[in-house]
Amino acid sequence: MKALVYRGPGLKALEDRPKPAIKDPGDAIVKILKTTICGTDLHILKGDVATCRPGRILGHEGVGVVDSIGPGVTAFRPGDKVLISCISACGTCEYCRRGMYSHCTTGGWILGNEIDGTQAEYVRTPHANTSLYHLPEGADEEALVMLSDILPTGFECGVLNGKVAPGSSVAIVGSGPIGLAALLTVQFYSPAQIIVIDIDDNRLGLARQFGATQAINSADGKAAEKVKALTGGRGVDTAIEAVGVPETFELCEDIVAPGGIIANIGVHGKKVDLHLEWLWEQNIEITTRLVDTVSTPMLLKTVQAKKLDPKRLITHRFTLDKIEDAYDTFGHAADTHALKVIIAA
Amino acid sequence: MKALVYRGPGLKALEDRPKPAIKDPGDAIVKILKTTICGTDLHILKGDVATCRPGRILGHEGVGVVDSIGPGVTAFRPGDKVLISCISACGTCEYCRRGMYSHCTTGGWILGNEIDGTQAEYVRTPHANTSLYHLPEGADEEALVMLSDILPTGFECGVLNGKVAPGSSVAIVGSGPIGLAALLTVQFYSPAQIIVIDIDDNRLGLARQFGATQAINSADGKAAEKVKALTGGRGVDTAIEAVGVPETFELCEDIVAPGGIIANIGVHGKKVDLHLEWLWEQNIEITTRLVDTVSTPMLLKTVQAKKLDPKRLITHRFTLDKIEDAYDTFGHAADTHALKVIIAA
Amino acid sequence: MKALVYRGPGLKALEDRPKPAIKDPGDAIVKILKTTICGTDLHILKGDVATCRPGRILGHEGVGVVDSIGPGVTAFRPGDKVLISCISACGTCEYCRRGMYSHCTTGGWILGNEIDGTQAEYVRTPHANTSLYHLPEGADEEALVMLSDILPTGFECGVLNGKVAPGSSVAIVGSGPIGLAALLTVQFYSPAQIIVIDIDDNRLGLARQFGATQAINSADGKAAEKVKALTGGRGVDTAIEAVGVPETFELCEDIVAPGGIIANIGVHGKKVDLHLEWLWEQNIEITTRLVDTVSTPMLLKTVQAKKLDPKRLITHRFTLDKIEDAYDTFGHAADTHALKVIIAA
Amino acid sequence: MKALVYRGPGLKALEDRPKPAIKDPGDAIVKILKTTICGTDLHILKGDVATCRPGRILGHEGVGVVDSIGPGVTAFRPGDKVLISCISACGTCEYCRRGMYSHCTTGGWILGNEIDGTQAEYVRTPHANTSLYHLPEGADEEALVMLSDILPTGFECGVLNGKVAPGSSVAIVGSGPIGLAALLTVQFYSPAQIIVIDIDDNRLGLARQFGATQAINSADGKAAEKVKALTGGRGVDTAIEAVGVPETFELCEDIVAPGGIIANIGVHGKKVDLHLEWLWEQNIEITTRLVDTVSTPMLLKTVQAKKLDPKRLITHRFTLDKIEDAYDTFGHAADTHALKVIIAA
Repeated sequence: MKALVYRGPGLKALEDRPKPAIKDPGDAIVKILKTTICGTDLHILKGDVATCRPGRILGHEGVGVVDSIGPGVTAFRPGDKVLISCISACGTCEYCRRGMYSHCTTGGWILGNEIDGTQAEYVRTPHANTSLYHLPEGADEEALVMLSDILPTGFECGVLNGKVAPGSSVAIVGSGPIGLAALLTVQFYSPAQIIVIDIDDNRLGLARQFGATQAINSADGKAAEKVKALTGGRGVDTAIEAVGVPETFELCEDIVAPGGIIANIGVHGKKVDLHLEWLWEQNIEITTRLVDTVSTPMLLKTVQAKKLDPKRLITHRFTLDKIEDAYDTFGHAADTHALKVIIAA
Repeated sequence: MKALVYRGPGLKALEDRPKPAIKDPGDAIVKILKTTICGTDLHILKGDVATCRPGRILGHEGVGVVDSIGPGVTAFRPGDKVLISCISACGTCEYCRRGMYSHCTTGGWILGNEIDGTQAEYVRTPHANTSLYHLPEGADEEALVMLSDILPTGFECGVLNGKVAPGSSVAIVGSGPIGLAALLTVQFYSPAQIIVIDIDDNRLGLARQFGATQAINSADGKAAEKVKALTGGRGVDTAIEAVGVPETFELCEDIVAPGGIIANIGVHGKKVDLHLEWLWEQNIEITTRLVDTVSTPMLLKTVQAKKLDPKRLITHRFTLDKIEDAYDTFGHAADTHALKVIIAA
Repeated sequence: MKALVYRGPGLKALEDRPKPAIKDPGDAIVKILKTTICGTDLHILKGDVATCRPGRILGHEGVGVVDSIGPGVTAFRPGDKVLISCISACGTCEYCRRGMYSHCTTGGWILGNEIDGTQAEYVRTPHANTSLYHLPEGADEEALVMLSDILPTGFECGVLNGKVAPGSSVAIVGSGPIGLAALLTVQFYSPAQIIVIDIDDNRLGLARQFGATQAINSADGKAAEKVKALTGGRGVDTAIEAVGVPETFELCEDIVAPGGIIANIGVHGKKVDLHLEWLWEQNIEITTRLVDTVSTPMLLKTVQAKKLDPKRLITHRFTLDKIEDAYDTFGHAADTHALKVIIAA
Repeated sequence: MKALVYRGPGLKALEDRPKPAIKDPGDAIVKILKTTICGTDLHILKGDVATCRPGRILGHEGVGVVDSIGPGVTAFRPGDKVLISCISACGTCEYCRRGMYSHCTTGGWILGNEIDGTQAEYVRTPHANTSLYHLPEGADEEALVMLSDILPTGFECGVLNGKVAPGSSVAIVGSGPIGLAALLTVQFYSPAQIIVIDIDDNRLGLARQFGATQAINSADGKAAEKVKALTGGRGVDTAIEAVGVPETFELCEDIVAPGGIIANIGVHGKKVDLHLEWLWEQNIEITTRLVDTVSTPMLLKTVQAKKLDPKRLITHRFTLDKIEDAYDTFGHAADTHALKVIIAA
């Protein structure tokens, strides 16, 4: 089968690989219908993700059709259309029982990282019972690819951890795909203010279309000041960090109100300065989270009820044999204005 | 009346001052029976607290008898014995309505800081309705002085913010009075492990007596390693920071388990390094808090029910005219083994 | 001044009464601008509310202008435009500290019940600091009258107690003003299904306009069956009772899903049958609540942010001298299709 | 193998039955070491449990050794010592994902009810991954039998649902095994008052030994009055119903304080009167729950940490061939003073 393979820092290739086979009783083999590329895939290609070794098939998102199942799989049958979660969860270990699927002792984020992934014609998904989801009748396949990773990530790490409430004020720092995923799902809770901050005016324009009540270009270094002005000097109840660099995290420290929350989504490569010399008495909360995808059933319902339109995140479409073009488009988002790209297998 | 007055960095004096008078309708004048000294008073004397100006009467803890009340005071009458909260709360502003008394827009920690305090024969307490508490029948006055600040601080900032649960594992970093206050109150929730970490063996001995299941002297730099060994390599569910320097906060980062909480109590003078380069995916929570004293009614009940014995924190007793000796004793705790000192006015 | 006075069961009269005066330090005298009539006022007129004695000025809702204040009032000054909460709260007692203003030991629902109310030119409001709210700049006075009682009641007793979540299913039993208030505010949380049940087709039509996803006329006795059919046989996550008779409460028992909540808003005059013989193992929760109006600040923000349009509840307008006509219109809602009526003082 | 078989109302027999075999991939066969009898087993024998058909092997509690496993079992191997939960949970269905194992769509309480149970030499346990628990090193087997059902039931349905907090007041209505299980575990949260109510003085004596702060014999019909007297006229924060008849549930209605919770544990055979005519405005919460056994890992930790001593519930011991004597002893608890009996297989 065709598969996109990581070949070491800076290198990838569309190769012929054998179709995967059932290995453990809980496995399913899924024929991929649609997949996508994640910012994390670009991190892998930069060589930033030590757990991902050369030879690995990339990709941890997708929808497909169950091809075969191991003897322990009871929730799915061959022919079932399924959403593949980016997180594999045994449902049994201490972390899974607490809903912390991201830290499953035999799962977590392994697809396209520690085991072969979804940017291929077929994929082996371990712990299928708890890691796949039935596609609702009549569901849009492309839309649901957005539920593999980006929407639960924005929602769980940003919105749920940020405890957004009706009438509250929220700032989302970073208006890339993940910031926009937080923006789409934060509206479930009817906050009064949703201030989006970025340095790219195109993305700020998108943020306004997607529901931001205010958009701030932070290139002038005055974002904190402007947020304070918009919130009566107090700051925001929830600051969502959706970039992953020290500057944006520290901006969150500056704009969070007393009693507020900084909900980190960003994948950070460096430590940040935490200004406890004044934050110690601000009664704040800071949260970090690798997405658990425990909210997938809830998100499926909101999509079915038309409370959430995931397709707004999709800007480009490719076929699997053109996946290298898809990487180019996605990797040069500033120019291509790409958010999420769909790859049909 | 006699009062201990801050005279600038390093300087204090027991002086004669006029008895305070009602200024606002919500004020009460309280005749002090017993007060104490807080670590924060030492900070003021070092010149670290900019809001506290020379000339200020120190002290923000105490029990006393209501001497007179303003026309807005309905909950207390002259002659009532009362506990004075270190936090003044109007009960009306947005923060007070959310239970964040520490950020009351016309109160907060002002006693012995922005207005004259309790290390005197009398004190004016603003917002008396919501800042004083009736002493229960037969209550021990000395015990209840511990409820002005130190016990709610350990409990709210450490234990409640730390979401301690039955069977969970807790580390308390710092075994001074505030760490011990957290240790006493953490036992309300029956954690399985309470590991106390300090560099003073005398205090670690106290921690063991007060209920620690394990005590670790961190002088050898191996505390993190030892905590991991005691917790099956996982770390603790709750790490309570009760010192206030970068090293101890960063130790908390090292020992918190995935899904765990770092509950900061320490008053920090410097920023700390937050290692988001690996913590971003650990699903942790960090909390900061200036005590709100919203738990005072709950703590009063636990004292009455003998679930909490605050007197275990009291090591020395003085009279108001010897308060400078009390400061000496409290200020040299490593030698005197002082925890909390009682000053009878 | 003119005032509508309760004269015993079935009797009321628009009378001349002396303008009220400050009695307690926390009082404010408020000149009424706009008030309204509540279903509870009709209950009083039927003689159902024992605490309300003949001679009482009715009304517990309204907006007005502060005329004078007692010495304990610090949050308001004469001339301030204010929203009057139906609940008077001292902010100090054990219940107020827990946010249970409805059970304030010296307040609660006393306006127009145990003390004179708002259907008059002036009203004395006790505990003004914690029972009045500043009108935001440019706010619509009529809209905010809906925040005195009906919207916080629908929101707190129905929506908050019902723990409505994105994607969840909700049934609202009763489509009168209070059911519609729940319907307006339940949409803050983006449930997937909002099924409204009533026996009046006009009101069901309104429910559809106000956001119901399904409307069921229960006159045929098949409502439970229909709800089950709409929810895959499972029932609803939240059943909101907004009528107050045994039949509608028992309908809620029939339609709540395992793990669901019955949130009672209805004012009941009789006991109901609780079918524990099968509900004991359904993992359900039942809540009751007299509105606390703790959500008023949150609701004010949602109105300002245009997430909530309270004026949709207003159907008729009168002046104070025509208040008896207003009662007629409101009391014959089935014919007049009245929801809430505004009375300009 | 020997097994105790239900033979229809009033009838049971110790019979020879074939050793069970693996049927589904998730099954384990467990050799029973110790089991016990539950009050529910007596209900079955009365013919009250329609789902349990004649021919069924009874019993849903026990510890044992894994004998063989199906191909889907990854968490256990033959030879592992395990605790058997009374609830079988797939870990995958919508209810299991929400922690509502009791309503697992292919599990729940099926052992000794819809499928053969544990009062035998061997048992087949479905969904073994999520329904068995490793016995900690050095654990006491008899003690852990109490974690199959009775302790999680008292804890989850009574204590957790009752939201017991430090300093709060609790009443436990019913001092049988399940009431005592609630009593043992309620102390995890350090309530100030634990009032136990029963009509059997022997059991009230036990309650005092087990930690009740007050014990009330309700035979005189004055229990509500006495509880009010003990709580300053207010009632209790949490009323735990541990009997299952209308009288005791209605007693809970009478003694719950405004803002309090009635947490039902009792298995009810009849409807009860819910006095909404006054409770509608009491801001109370009523919960029901079939135990989910989600707290088993937490309870295991509290046992290991010696915060909970389950053996206090064990009064008698038998071998499997004498299990009919065990039923006699357990069934006549008023005379035999039996709480829980251990049966060694």
